[in-house]
Amino acid sequence: MPRNVFPLDSTRTFTDQQLTGHNRWHPDIPAQVHVKPGDTFRVDCREWFDGAIHNDDSADDILNAPLAGVHVLSGPIAVDGAQPGDLLIVDILDVGPIPQEDSGPLAGQGWGYTGVFATRNGGGFLTEQFPDAYKVIWDFQGGTATSRHVPGVSFTGIVHPGLMGTAPSPELLGRWNAREQALIDTDPERVPPLALPPNPDSAILGALTGADFDRAAAEAARTAPPRENGGNQDIKNLTKGSRVFYPVFVDGANLSMGDLHFSQGDGEITFCGAIEMGGFIDLHVDVIKGGMATYGVSENAIFVPGNTDPQYSEWIAFSGTSVTLDGEQRYLDSHLSYQRACLHAIDYLTNFGYSPIQAYMILGAAPIEGRLSGVVDIPNSCSTVYLPTGIFDFDVKPGKNGPHRIDPGPGVPHSVA
Amino acid sequence: MPRNVFPLDSTRTFTDQQLTGHNRWHPDIPAQVHVKPGDTFRVDCREWFDGAIHNDDSADDILNAPLAGVHVLSGPIAVDGAQPGDLLIVDILDVGPIPQEDSGPLAGQGWGYTGVFATRNGGGFLTEQFPDAYKVIWDFQGGTATSRHVPGVSFTGIVHPGLMGTAPSPELLGRWNAREQALIDTDPERVPPLALPPNPDSAILGALTGADFDRAAAEAARTAPPRENGGNQDIKNLTKGSRVFYPVFVDGANLSMGDLHFSQGDGEITFCGAIEMGGFIDLHVDVIKGGMATYGVSENAIFVPGNTDPQYSEWIAFSGTSVTLDGEQRYLDSHLSYQRACLHAIDYLTNFGYSPIQAYMILGAAPIEGRLSGVVDIPNSCSTVYLPTGIFDFDVKPGKNGPHRIDPGPGVPHSVA
Amino acid sequence: MPRNVFPLDSTRTFTDQQLTGHNRWHPDIPAQVHVKPGDTFRVDCREWFDGAIHNDDSADDILNAPLAGVHVLSGPIAVDGAQPGDLLIVDILDVGPIPQEDSGPLAGQGWGYTGVFATRNGGGFLTEQFPDAYKVIWDFQGGTATSRHVPGVSFTGIVHPGLMGTAPSPELLGRWNAREQALIDTDPERVPPLALPPNPDSAILGALTGADFDRAAAEAARTAPPRENGGNQDIKNLTKGSRVFYPVFVDGANLSMGDLHFSQGDGEITFCGAIEMGGFIDLHVDVIKGGMATYGVSENAIFVPGNTDPQYSEWIAFSGTSVTLDGEQRYLDSHLSYQRACLHAIDYLTNFGYSPIQAYMILGAAPIEGRLSGVVDIPNSCSTVYLPTGIFDFDVKPGKNGPHRIDPGPGVPHSVA
Amino acid sequence: MPRNVFPLDSTRTFTDQQLTGHNRWHPDIPAQVHVKPGDTFRVDCREWFDGAIHNDDSADDILNAPLAGVHVLSGPIAVDGAQPGDLLIVDILDVGPIPQEDSGPLAGQGWGYTGVFATRNGGGFLTEQFPDAYKVIWDFQGGTATSRHVPGVSFTGIVHPGLMGTAPSPELLGRWNAREQALIDTDPERVPPLALPPNPDSAILGALTGADFDRAAAEAARTAPPRENGGNQDIKNLTKGSRVFYPVFVDGANLSMGDLHFSQGDGEITFCGAIEMGGFIDLHVDVIKGGMATYGVSENAIFVPGNTDPQYSEWIAFSGTSVTLDGEQRYLDSHLSYQRACLHAIDYLTNFGYSPIQAYMILGAAPIEGRLSGVVDIPNSCSTVYLPTGIFDFDVKPGKNGPHRIDPGPGVPHSVA
Repeated sequence: MPRNVFPLDSTRTFTDQQLTGHNRWHPDIPAQVHVKPGDTFRVDCREWFDGAIHNDDSADDILNAPLAGVHVLSGPIAVDGAQPGDLLIVDILDVGPIPQEDSGPLAGQGWGYTGVFATRNGGGFLTEQFPDAYKVIWDFQGGTATSRHVPGVSFTGIVHPGLMGTAPSPELLGRWNAREQALIDTDPERVPPLALPPNPDSAILGALTGADFDRAAAEAARTAPPRENGGNQDIKNLTKGSRVFYPVFVDGANLSMGDLHFSQGDGEITFCGAIEMGGFIDLHVDVIKGGMATYGVSENAIFVPGNTDPQYSEWIAFSGTSVTLDGEQRYLDSHLSYQRACLHAIDYLTNFGYSPIQAYMILGAAPIEGRLSGVVDIPNSCSTVYLPTGIFDFDVKPGKNGPHRIDPGPGVPHSVA
Repeated sequence: MPRNVFPLDSTRTFTDQQLTGHNRWHPDIPAQVHVKPGDTFRVDCREWFDGAIHNDDSADDILNAPLAGVHVLSGPIAVDGAQPGDLLIVDILDVGPIPQEDSGPLAGQGWGYTGVFATRNGGGFLTEQFPDAYKVIWDFQGGTATSRHVPGVSFTGIVHPGLMGTAPSPELLGRWNAREQALIDTDPERVPPLALPPNPDSAILGALTGADFDRAAAEAARTAPPRENGGNQDIKNLTKGSRVFYPVFVDGANLSMGDLHFSQGDGEITFCGAIEMGGFIDLHVDVIKGGMATYGVSENAIFVPGNTDPQYSEWIAFSGTSVTLDGEQRYLDSHLSYQRACLHAIDYLTNFGYSPIQAYMILGAAPIEGRLSGVVDIPNSCSTVYLPTGIFDFDVKPGKNGPHRIDPGPGVPHSVA
Repeated sequence: MPRNVFPLDSTRTFTDQQLTGHNRWHPDIPAQVHVKPGDTFRVDCREWFDGAIHNDDSADDILNAPLAGVHVLSGPIAVDGAQPGDLLIVDILDVGPIPQEDSGPLAGQGWGYTGVFATRNGGGFLTEQFPDAYKVIWDFQGGTATSRHVPGVSFTGIVHPGLMGTAPSPELLGRWNAREQALIDTDPERVPPLALPPNPDSAILGALTGADFDRAAAEAARTAPPRENGGNQDIKNLTKGSRVFYPVFVDGANLSMGDLHFSQGDGEITFCGAIEMGGFIDLHVDVIKGGMATYGVSENAIFVPGNTDPQYSEWIAFSGTSVTLDGEQRYLDSHLSYQRACLHAIDYLTNFGYSPIQAYMILGAAPIEGRLSGVVDIPNSCSTVYLPTGIFDFDVKPGKNGPHRIDPGPGVPHSVA
Repeated sequence: MPRNVFPLDSTRTFTDQQLTGHNRWHPDIPAQVHVKPGDTFRVDCREWFDGAIHNDDSADDILNAPLAGVHVLSGPIAVDGAQPGDLLIVDILDVGPIPQEDSGPLAGQGWGYTGVFATRNGGGFLTEQFPDAYKVIWDFQGGTATSRHVPGVSFTGIVHPGLMGTAPSPELLGRWNAREQALIDTDPERVPPLALPPNPDSAILGALTGADFDRAAAEAARTAPPRENGGNQDIKNLTKGSRVFYPVFVDGANLSMGDLHFSQGDGEITFCGAIEMGGFIDLHVDVIKGGMATYGVSENAIFVPGNTDPQYSEWIAFSGTSVTLDGEQRYLDSHLSYQRACLHAIDYLTNFGYSPIQAYMILGAAPIEGRLSGVVDIPNSCSTVYLPTGIFDFDVKPGKNGPHRIDPGPGVPHSVA
């Protein structure tokens, strides 16, 4: 095991650890750890809700999830000598659930969860169809996930960090806040909201205290969105063996990470989220001096994915276009066309006995592929979603004998606001 | 070779053939061919601009492309016994360039083209950055494409039909026209337009003539967008070996197809288009009676892709979020985030010596993957684009020694409106 | 289509064509075709028994196959400037059944065959278990093979030339004949024989005639074995897109080829053989001057396989060791251990309803993988054979409910000597 | 972490642990652990030489390796209710180096080794070419291996247990001993020996003591060869996610395992061995009652490999035939043809600057594929070996500019007997 530079005790909360991480982005959050280019090290990561979600059969915890407190991130980790304009090389050597803890009350201890928020809490990709809170528990056995709430399906997880990024510069943070507030201002009462402004309530800023804390907490960016620094990209292919190149905006780069996922479908369409868990990540870092200019990478991570993602060779795919369910034509809206493709997949799976929410959970958690197939054919974009047929215990392809029917069992825990 | 039910002579125009296809969707276009469930047959397909694009070093033909005449489709093919409510099974047994014709003036005779429209003609996915007309010629050698206009790159084509679909019912056609006109009416003078209304000019409707032609031509839908019937989906993974399930809306299903692509990146971001060519497609058809209800497929094709797509195992990937180049924050706009990911890839490749339009052409033609990675992390969606590193003659990954520089050569033909 | 430099008419025999190929290796066989480095061209190939095997339900033609006449090869093709010591680059641009001929009496016209020789004719890999003559007809539909003689299985073919190679030098030919005769002499009456000596009977030597023919026919090497020049390697992975590097032993290299296979399992264990067919192969050639010394390739082809082989991701695998069925321990005999692995696979499949010969035919024709897993663990080598589960219409994995039973139908045609 | 039923302390020798395993096969070795069908558990495994091989730059430890003491196996593990005639399902949930121990003197603590035995100790697959003792140390970083002794190469490990199997029945053990002694008797003085007879010296038989020990030690089978019970199969594809079906020969099945490999090429041609390491394996077991008869599995494991093996898509391949280096023709000897293919690969790599032994070590340790390509083309079998090109830091394919030359560095430690 590489040296663990950010150890976490599963029995203690995020703020009651040897080192305290953070749940906001701010350039003034001091590095908690210092490493050198070429170093290899381990970082423990807490599940994103810090243990508030339980391995049970109720979705009340999702309904009442402590939204202001996410994401609990490990870091910042300063890399000696990294300076603004450099590219930070981050090799993901390994990533997984909490080692040596195969059972227990904390997600990552042999299990994880996929949730869907109630609309008032942000909903999910399909919140119009699924407006309440839902939760599914997945059990890990080796690299495989199964659920008592979703029978007939098992799949090899595609383990990755949902969130990793470097600290923003003050100037970059200022841009974030300005542009997101401008968006919020277009419809400030919207439910779910258009964006989340800085919120000192529940802010955790590592070693910052007192007036420094107060000032930073008032302007620190929320961690929900991906941004120029990487952040909550939710890219399922950032698996073991991946090499990521992050732009550096502050001295030391100040890398942070969290929101580990045992598995996820493209889009993390359930929002809360993939298969969420705590765990560890082993990293190797290096620096390309001046790499941002040399390679034209001014923002957003670039990466070379690992080569041990789970292999499936047969897929059933669904397509959608940018027409709303009400029949309104939208102009090249790939977000909408992906929604429609996912809804088609859900409709299809219900013919095999699944409830719609069970099907939705499969799409959120299994290693499905979501592709932007056509983006120019005015006025309709075409998105497609691919489900590996091998994750089902039965033949999920259409045939002349009609669909096999599963017993959906007790189904998905569900809580109404 | 299966029986060729729709033969085309490469030396004659689309309307001067044994059978005349169509370039609009309308339920009244009579079937030109009748087949039975279980039949296997070949269909020749004309390149989508009917030969107007030439194998030369000027983009004038793209600038002046006969837009009203696309897409020239082979069909309709009626399948005996297929009725509304059925699912039509279409197996793509093979698809390729024009057989036995390895050179000649027609795209598909050993070569194909990728174009970008001038903005006034519809532009492309990145028309703000590339407002003019551009063209690249690709030479086919076996399954591989190379171009004198884009050095340093070669790739195995991912051959597929860009367009295939069943005929709409009168009711469905009516819905299309209504919703698309409603969209056009929101900004009727827009350049490029929001959608394309029916246009009797240049309409080809198979065997329809006289008053029937005039009536149908006035209401027949353009073929640019994908819709409930499949249509111009531009799904690069509909390769040899794929099985597609189309909803049936009229008696006989009335299947048509065209717009063959030697290769394409996800999105067909160049619009005009993938690597365009004429060629052939071998099909096997069957019917699942009542399959639309049985499997919950009310619209849009579902499919099982083939298993001989070109295999690449190393990729370099770029991410983008839904912030405009001007810094404006948009709400979960996956179309925008894919644009930004593609622009990041283009910026990156220019550091290796490519001109921006050369890089754009690579993204449009090579088998790149475009994924909807995060679609819920308000306000930013995250899209990613994956380039296979093996298509480049040099190491395209970032390193400490800086990028290899290619000689871009004379570059991409370009014509200004 | 590239220029066809070796056209064959399906309705005429091998010796009644525009150009006459050969069925022996000899340096004096004159080149029938001349090409230049950098050229692209097509070659038609005759099925290896020149049409003696029929699409019917009897194995009599296999029993009485004209063994002395194989393999009918297209060539030699001289590459201008190639000299002994060079490496000949051969790109397989495409390879397939007879184009535009989807039905007819000649293998390659929409169908192919797998045979097993009777022991007296050479037998097969498992001739002790299967001593008679057997034949299976496979129908091609696009890239897929199915058989009326083997129900419940269909697979994407892995199309390749079984045989391709350069001409031997006189010195090399002399070595072949000496060493093979020495082997024969150790047991000259063995059935099947240890090797096949030169045999003027049925020899075809292209344009050679008269005394030149007689002299060459007496010493020309048979084409059954692979040797230093490539030859009958039966490597299933020499698919479309492969680049092969052959050593050059005579001026012009004098490349020849034939024995096209629609599909084959590793080993071609049925001997007669893979799925045999006539067809075409499109090639591009080039030369690395002095490449044999530069790259240390003194003999046997090296190659870079193509990247569109059929993809399967789930396999059921069987292992074997070098102990005979009679229980005798052999020393690190990987040939025997592969036999035992194959026999285990056959035994296994019979529990699903297949007859042993049906199972054998599947292993010979489908894209199975045969691996040398352990070759040092004295005294037992361990070989493994992998069957793609997706080729079966049913779940072929072991489970608690026992095996699914297929209806084996009328089974495999069989003829006793 | 699953319950660890067979924990090992890295600082203590194999016989000085909480539970003592064994290094011979015998039905009377008592189960050390009892589990139930459906159980999931962890087993620690010691590297096969029990720590005798060091992380240094000398091969003396390989020269003097304690051969009589291998393999140190963890087990036997009895599965309640398993009886002779059943199939034991063993799911490999995870397997890896020693957890949480990233550095230290024991192979598996962040490093592993590949050795080649001197001929007198058993040699390797190519002992005629490499008659001495050699050793290479590989460093693990995440899933990747690199070596200070072999520059220019790095690869993703294909982690697996080299050895796993069930206990033999007395009858089966008797057969092993008889047939192997018969082989030895054909050439009892051979170096290396044809097989290894029972050897009480260094025998470790778990809890057996006294007269029971003496009796069993005198007849217990050595662990080197794979046999009907599985055993030392060295199948590189038994990776995480694999499901193996073992025949059961004694009550409880009595499963044992060890000889973990971080990586291995097909054949484990270096013999000592793959990349050897200690570590852990997580298993899930179940039983198919009467499965041996139901599925026709009387001997040797069958298995379904996992789906996260490292993916490479470009390979350079070498072929060989069954002709000895001295030019003697052998009859269909696939062992020999694989040797010749491997020697061709080694010859080739030396042109890039590698020493022959460096090239040999790459073939032994990297995830190369060894295939039985042709096994019927008398008198030559054809074997092929595939090297993933992506494991090299440079372009390893032939080209017109000649090979890139690496600096071989100090090379491979080497000790002469």
